[in-house]
Amino acid sequence: MMNKNNTDWVRHVSITPPTLQNNTADADRLTGELKTQLNTDTVDIDLDLLKRLPDLLRRYEYSVNCILFKDRKRWLVTGVTNSHNTSPIYGLAVDLGTTRIVLRLIDLSTGRISDEISFDNPQISVGPDVLTRIHFADQDGGLDRLNKMIIDGLNRMIIKLCDSCKIKPNNIYLLSVAGNTAMTHLFMGLTPHWIIREPYIPVINRPGYVKAKELGIKVNPVAGVQIFPNVGSYFGGDLIAGILFSGLNKTSDTAILVDVGTNAEVVLGNKDWLIACAGAAGPALECGVTGMGMMAGPGAIDQVAIDQVAIDHDIYNIRLHTIGNMPPEGICGSGLIDLAAQLFLCGMIDIKGKLAPSICGSKLKEKDGIKHFVVVPAKDSATGSDLTISQAGIDSLIRSKAAMYTILETITSYVGISFKELSTFYVAGAFGSFINPGSAISIGMLPDLPIDRYKSLNNSSIGGATMALTSSECLDEIDNIRNRITYLELNVNQEFMNRFSAARFLPHTDRSLFRSVKVWTHSSEAHDGEQK
Amino acid sequence: MMNKNNTDWVRHVSITPPTLQNNTADADRLTGELKTQLNTDTVDIDLDLLKRLPDLLRRYEYSVNCILFKDRKRWLVTGVTNSHNTSPIYGLAVDLGTTRIVLRLIDLSTGRISDEISFDNPQISVGPDVLTRIHFADQDGGLDRLNKMIIDGLNRMIIKLCDSCKIKPNNIYLLSVAGNTAMTHLFMGLTPHWIIREPYIPVINRPGYVKAKELGIKVNPVAGVQIFPNVGSYFGGDLIAGILFSGLNKTSDTAILVDVGTNAEVVLGNKDWLIACAGAAGPALECGVTGMGMMAGPGAIDQVAIDQVAIDHDIYNIRLHTIGNMPPEGICGSGLIDLAAQLFLCGMIDIKGKLAPSICGSKLKEKDGIKHFVVVPAKDSATGSDLTISQAGIDSLIRSKAAMYTILETITSYVGISFKELSTFYVAGAFGSFINPGSAISIGMLPDLPIDRYKSLNNSSIGGATMALTSSECLDEIDNIRNRITYLELNVNQEFMNRFSAARFLPHTDRSLFRSVKVWTHSSEAHDGEQK
Repeated sequence: MMNKNNTDWVRHVSITPPTLQNNTADADRLTGELKTQLNTDTVDIDLDLLKRLPDLLRRYEYSVNCILFKDRKRWLVTGVTNSHNTSPIYGLAVDLGTTRIVLRLIDLSTGRISDEISFDNPQISVGPDVLTRIHFADQDGGLDRLNKMIIDGLNRMIIKLCDSCKIKPNNIYLLSVAGNTAMTHLFMGLTPHWIIREPYIPVINRPGYVKAKELGIKVNPVAGVQIFPNVGSYFGGDLIAGILFSGLNKTSDTAILVDVGTNAEVVLGNKDWLIACAGAAGPALECGVTGMGMMAGPGAIDQVAIDQVAIDHDIYNIRLHTIGNMPPEGICGSGLIDLAAQLFLCGMIDIKGKLAPSICGSKLKEKDGIKHFVVVPAKDSATGSDLTISQAGIDSLIRSKAAMYTILETITSYVGISFKELSTFYVAGAFGSFINPGSAISIGMLPDLPIDRYKSLNNSSIGGATMALTSSECLDEIDNIRNRITYLELNVNQEFMNRFSAARFLPHTDRSLFRSVKVWTHSSEAHDGEQK
Repeated sequence: MMNKNNTDWVRHVSITPPTLQNNTADADRLTGELKTQLNTDTVDIDLDLLKRLPDLLRRYEYSVNCILFKDRKRWLVTGVTNSHNTSPIYGLAVDLGTTRIVLRLIDLSTGRISDEISFDNPQISVGPDVLTRIHFADQDGGLDRLNKMIIDGLNRMIIKLCDSCKIKPNNIYLLSVAGNTAMTHLFMGLTPHWIIREPYIPVINRPGYVKAKELGIKVNPVAGVQIFPNVGSYFGGDLIAGILFSGLNKTSDTAILVDVGTNAEVVLGNKDWLIACAGAAGPALECGVTGMGMMAGPGAIDQVAIDQVAIDHDIYNIRLHTIGNMPPEGICGSGLIDLAAQLFLCGMIDIKGKLAPSICGSKLKEKDGIKHFVVVPAKDSATGSDLTISQAGIDSLIRSKAAMYTILETITSYVGISFKELSTFYVAGAFGSFINPGSAISIGMLPDLPIDRYKSLNNSSIGGATMALTSSECLDEIDNIRNRITYLELNVNQEFMNRFSAARFLPHTDRSLFRSVKVWTHSSEAHDGEQK
């Protein structure tokens, strides 16, 4: 029996009709054939499907497509369709982001992506961050409300996605869901209470098989949900999905994967070993900067370049790019890193990140005793006010980038590997993927490696979830990855603090670590003394 | 970790509280310990339980009793209770009889039977036999109605049983259900349509794990239901339970098990092999005899003895025993066999089963041209009318006993074993268990073996279901039994018909097969010629 053009989740099965000599029950006849095809000894059929099985087998003359689910060593039949006149068989990959939720529809007969939709996590109304939501979950009925928000939101989007692809939610037989540990708990209706309390214990690490119906997800009632496992409270299924997507678990060369956000999550390894850690990087990298910080979206400045108008003149022109080419409304993470890098390179901020009045000139304003750098004057902004970044905002960014670099230094030195030995540096995360690695190097957030070693993974979480929907090999690999990861607890000890302090300069106190970063020479350097 | 005084389904687990150094998730910590204890690699936790797990573990200080379910190689945790202050943990064994349903409550902490209750199968209102019900199931909504009857009936009885034991349905964590193939299908809501249609295909042979909640059974919502597998449409889970209960699958000596009813189901074998067959014996053995036939119950004649009043006088006194010592209302199966045996032994019926007017005397009456034998005159009966057995009723019984003997002959000769080689002859079935083997031998229904070889199993189906609730070894044995059975299709060929014809005499045409059966000599023999 060939399984041509299909993913591993759709299997053509043709069984000989029963006779008096061979009167095994319908279910056992079907699972018997599947056991042979799949070379396994456990194939079960869901009760809801079992009720319709005799009719389906006879109607389709014992030649059917079976839709399968795999829960570790156990296979489950979650659908039986006509193999002659193929009805649509779809899977749904879900990235359960704290901020944004992405749904991707996969045609399980071909493995191709049909469409994608995303929406803001409705739990944002409770709180933008996971911590607020976890506290809210402790309130009476709080967990149920958070759970309902996400499930209702998913159900609405599933209808929308299906409508656009002209299929029915009933045609979705398989879900693959990746999210961080807290989001996964809220999605499953499990209390996240202990996740944030020492010693930081999730309810479950490896959820395994759950029926979509049990979770309230309105797709085919028999559909199974594959939920990515977590390593712990601070290393979730989204990262396991990211590792799967990057493929670093399969290569001989050692590579690193960094998910940049409020938390910096890092995995280092190769086909033989995987080590991971996670640490707080602060909100700055996800635009928690006061003033002009905003989420990536239309009108957000995502790229910044500063040009010296003429050599020997300290007159600088700021060029901006906004998402959707809209009038600028604020700045998102990647724009902020660009901005900081450019400000540093042209000397508008010094190695401590302090705004230099001599170079900033008229771009510098003071409000309530705090220096502000005007990125976009009121006349050019969408808000009608100046868009500025404050000294406090810059300081916050520098703490974040220092934390990120310190985490990277800690994990690599723990295994005794230098940055140079890394074959690839994967940058993941909704925000991280858009970082200009050159800018990140300039401010000393990422190590000074040749730019081509950096690879952006875009949304690696949805990428991994998609892979799990296309082959059982990928699915098996998920548990392999999880079980192979050594989780390094980041102890904020003296060594960590020393590294952190050294990283709080631009790009670093040890300039030899960032030889490629060249600050422009400019005329003002001579006048520095005067202007102070 | 000892598991003292418990069944295999309750395990004490004590886990070390989590620390920063060991922060595995609650669920994985619990299943990890269980995997070690059970020496298995698959232990799952039901989602409903998972939602309460973190709270339960902390409240009980990580020392709990886990209630387990086993689905082939996979274990499931279906309950977590306080191990210090033990809360009641019960299991429910169910015999899903076509006529009568028996529920038995087992204390899973000790394995002891707490109480038992039984009730008439509510589906009797649709039809007394499985065939009528299967046809009814084909009607629009018919299957749902039949399913609801059984589930609602069970739920009512569960409440009653729990009330009498002062526990709550919520304390029931495990169910074990044995029924014939059709009843099992109706219980699960699966169509029985194909069971009675060539080539007689059940929907499923091995149901495996089903959640009580999914079936609508109102016990602990996480409770699992272990449903006995069937071998085919005519060899159901009740018989597998019977084999388990008899233990014939474990002995070196070959034994036979017969479930006597409208269908005669037979298993022959030992620890090395098992062969089974089933065949229609007709309704007579389950009191389908016209006239005075009734189900076993208060007022039913269940034992009959006929005494010769004085030697050389053909005056016979009929002594009866009724269930509950009530005035006689009718006769049940075991009474009927006694009656037929006694009538034969004293010559009131001849070797062809024909009523002999010369001996019956005034006890013989004729109605609509058919001879009736008055068992209880109107003045002594509960109905106020004569209780009689007609010639047609006797004929029907003889066909049934002949079918039974033929089936026994066929299966033993198929494996080349003689009746004498059988170490034990188990008689099972709600009716079969009450048969007097001596009477059954006298009419040639059961082979002429020493009486002590016969063992009545009473309700072996509930017995087997009970065993499955007390040890996992028994549970594993269920699948072993099922997989080892060779099912012999009874072909109604010439050989079968020859045997059947020979068995339609009392006790048999071949008198040498029944040497122990001694017909009384009496004075009337001399007069026979005259009275004709």
